[in-house]
Amino acid sequence: MFYGKIFNLLRENHKDNWLLYTKHEFINKLSNDTLKEEKFLNYLIQDYLFLIQFSKAWSLAILKSDNLEEMKIAATTVNDLINFEMELHITLCANYGISKSDLENADEENENIAYTRYVLELGYSGDFLDLLSSLAPCVLGYGEIGLNCQNSNPRTIMYKKWVETYSSIEYQNVCKNVSGLIDQAFLLRLGTNFENTYKWKKVNQIFKKATLLEVDFWNMAIK
Amino acid sequence: MFYGKIFNLLRENHKDNWLLYTKHEFINKLSNDTLKEEKFLNYLIQDYLFLIQFSKAWSLAILKSDNLEEMKIAATTVNDLINFEMELHITLCANYGISKSDLENADEENENIAYTRYVLELGYSGDFLDLLSSLAPCVLGYGEIGLNCQNSNPRTIMYKKWVETYSSIEYQNVCKNVSGLIDQAFLLRLGTNFENTYKWKKVNQIFKKATLLEVDFWNMAIK
Amino acid sequence: MFYGKIFNLLRENHKDNWLLYTKHEFINKLSNDTLKEEKFLNYLIQDYLFLIQFSKAWSLAILKSDNLEEMKIAATTVNDLINFEMELHITLCANYGISKSDLENADEENENIAYTRYVLELGYSGDFLDLLSSLAPCVLGYGEIGLNCQNSNPRTIMYKKWVETYSSIEYQNVCKNVSGLIDQAFLLRLGTNFENTYKWKKVNQIFKKATLLEVDFWNMAIK
Amino acid sequence: MFYGKIFNLLRENHKDNWLLYTKHEFINKLSNDTLKEEKFLNYLIQDYLFLIQFSKAWSLAILKSDNLEEMKIAATTVNDLINFEMELHITLCANYGISKSDLENADEENENIAYTRYVLELGYSGDFLDLLSSLAPCVLGYGEIGLNCQNSNPRTIMYKKWVETYSSIEYQNVCKNVSGLIDQAFLLRLGTNFENTYKWKKVNQIFKKATLLEVDFWNMAIK
Repeated sequence: MFYGKIFNLLRENHKDNWLLYTKHEFINKLSNDTLKEEKFLNYLIQDYLFLIQFSKAWSLAILKSDNLEEMKIAATTVNDLINFEMELHITLCANYGISKSDLENADEENENIAYTRYVLELGYSGDFLDLLSSLAPCVLGYGEIGLNCQNSNPRTIMYKKWVETYSSIEYQNVCKNVSGLIDQAFLLRLGTNFENTYKWKKVNQIFKKATLLEVDFWNMAIK
Repeated sequence: MFYGKIFNLLRENHKDNWLLYTKHEFINKLSNDTLKEEKFLNYLIQDYLFLIQFSKAWSLAILKSDNLEEMKIAATTVNDLINFEMELHITLCANYGISKSDLENADEENENIAYTRYVLELGYSGDFLDLLSSLAPCVLGYGEIGLNCQNSNPRTIMYKKWVETYSSIEYQNVCKNVSGLIDQAFLLRLGTNFENTYKWKKVNQIFKKATLLEVDFWNMAIK
Repeated sequence: MFYGKIFNLLRENHKDNWLLYTKHEFINKLSNDTLKEEKFLNYLIQDYLFLIQFSKAWSLAILKSDNLEEMKIAATTVNDLINFEMELHITLCANYGISKSDLENADEENENIAYTRYVLELGYSGDFLDLLSSLAPCVLGYGEIGLNCQNSNPRTIMYKKWVETYSSIEYQNVCKNVSGLIDQAFLLRLGTNFENTYKWKKVNQIFKKATLLEVDFWNMAIK
Repeated sequence: MFYGKIFNLLRENHKDNWLLYTKHEFINKLSNDTLKEEKFLNYLIQDYLFLIQFSKAWSLAILKSDNLEEMKIAATTVNDLINFEMELHITLCANYGISKSDLENADEENENIAYTRYVLELGYSGDFLDLLSSLAPCVLGYGEIGLNCQNSNPRTIMYKKWVETYSSIEYQNVCKNVSGLIDQAFLLRLGTNFENTYKWKKVNQIFKKATLLEVDFWNMAIK
């Protein structure tokens, strides 16, 4: 049902926390049109700052790759994020009255810092599997959230667009590619008996922590 | 009055935030014996986890040094933290009924992650001045807090010891050495006209953010 | 005549070493058809291994960027290198009888390691200017070499193609973009009085060392 | 006979290259008094520059540690290197007429850069096992060389001292501690079946490459 063998295992192992994240009140309110627009606009600003750091974390995935195939997927992701997503985000914000300079001068909230720096620090100090396990909740969680609310059809245009983005075929394909990369990377490095390795314990802790930091990001967005 | 020219300038530039940190309710309660011991014990556990990451951040200072003198001060700090402070911390906690395994298995709270990973990520992505500016609020703030409450004399033994530690000559000397390192590092790299540089703007942002993350650490400790 | 104000200054400051690199015997032999093909094929293999590490170094440029504009140029370069240049290189080698698996299993020679790890380590430990100064000799040197021998017209097809690649408008445009990035990055961080800064001394040492490591790379290719 | 289970396995797997390193002509000449003193003095200067980078690589071992015990051994090594070995080295050089400023202003030779940057880059991009496998040839190879020539008794005072240093109980204990750290680190992360892991293949490549870069360091010293 969900993407990738490894992701499904991690998701199952941390199901309660995973649902705190993917079924968060912020999403409910967004999909049933009860979210205050001011909160959504603040979320968009924080999300812009998040994307800057997130692109940098994906750049570390290039550095931690062990072969050209891994490098290619990571480089494509980085390029998409920096040369396309960021522009889309800037345009979207402009439509809602938030200028590029508003975005650049905005102050990162602590919950934003917590998640992005956790992922980036892992990207520096950890290996490819550590890093992917911290990136997975964001990439694949947004895909699952997109599917969960694809029929919600909120009237508020900017909520509708947000739902469309993450439930789109394009975004679902990103999820397929990333979960495929994760499966191959784990298989290559840990083999088929991966659940008995030291690394498996470690990546479970990372996945759990990254999921909880996502929960806190939504808490920040709705507070 | 305080240590070091650069630190005093940064402190003055962000005085309001600085006082939110150094005059935090947690310190008041600790020094007038109204802090619940359970909160203090939780703080000690988080502080152990903090020290692990903080030692790693200081290790990055060795890597970002430009000469042997800088390397020596950073290496001495790392060695003191890992081979002495950590042991003291473990012994202290043991006295209060927290075992070493309690410490090692404790879960880092998000506010703890936010601060430590912010500093570590800067240590990786930034230069020596960026890193020192993020370390300064912790090292020198605790020294100032120690002096501020040196006459408070709380009856609770563990609060009394905490105050004694940070107001001690030994700890105040650490503050002198670190602020001296900061002054020399800035002078070497930016010259006497440092306040007109691009870097000065950047380190001010870092110092401010690190200070606010310290405030959040106290908020976590008292919540 | 050459690209960019900063590059021209660095080039002038280290002119003798620069000419050892750009006027190396390897280039002369290649352009007048006296280079043994076996040596060129070995060079192509080492160059493949070089490009892997060089792409990783450019990924660090994304991480060390201070704004979205810098990130975009660095990300575009990374994407071009990994998703296009590498493929071209593989195809080119295949035409000359070197399979993809030959490339992947080849052993990096020590001179190759020296240059790539010098640049990568600087990318990790240094800042954006340090990194760019170590990347410049490669990117811009090849552009200058391309122009120098654009009329040489060697008969050996693979030498002819090599000359065409680096003298092409496309490659010359890469040089323009990268030298523009360098000029802007220096101006932003060091201002107009950059020649009197500590950093300027440091980047000159880096530029010189990277140039000499390029000379050694040619020495390896011709030995 | 040699220290540590893992080191012995790596050493056996790459025996030919290992002997090229530990039985190098430089060592022979040093132990039978036929080495030109001028070459030894140049070696000492390059070794000083090497130790600076080597200390930084060991600092990365602190950052890549997974527990306090690993951090302690790494931090002790870093502190010994920076606060004691470097001073000894400076004093030794001063006795032989090389001033501290000679050391600091000396130019790193390319073979020196190749080895140190290879290790440092691995320290940044790799994990604890990768890094230890690149550090092992240096630490443990010098211990083996020390034992190999402990009875050689060269008349030249500085060669005699050099032999005494690396055959001393103190240095042999360093070798015991480091090989013990390596054994524990491998056991913790890879378990008892480590020889069948992906990582084992990788660390073998690293160990081999680091050994060959050591050979090249001797080649540089004697050329």
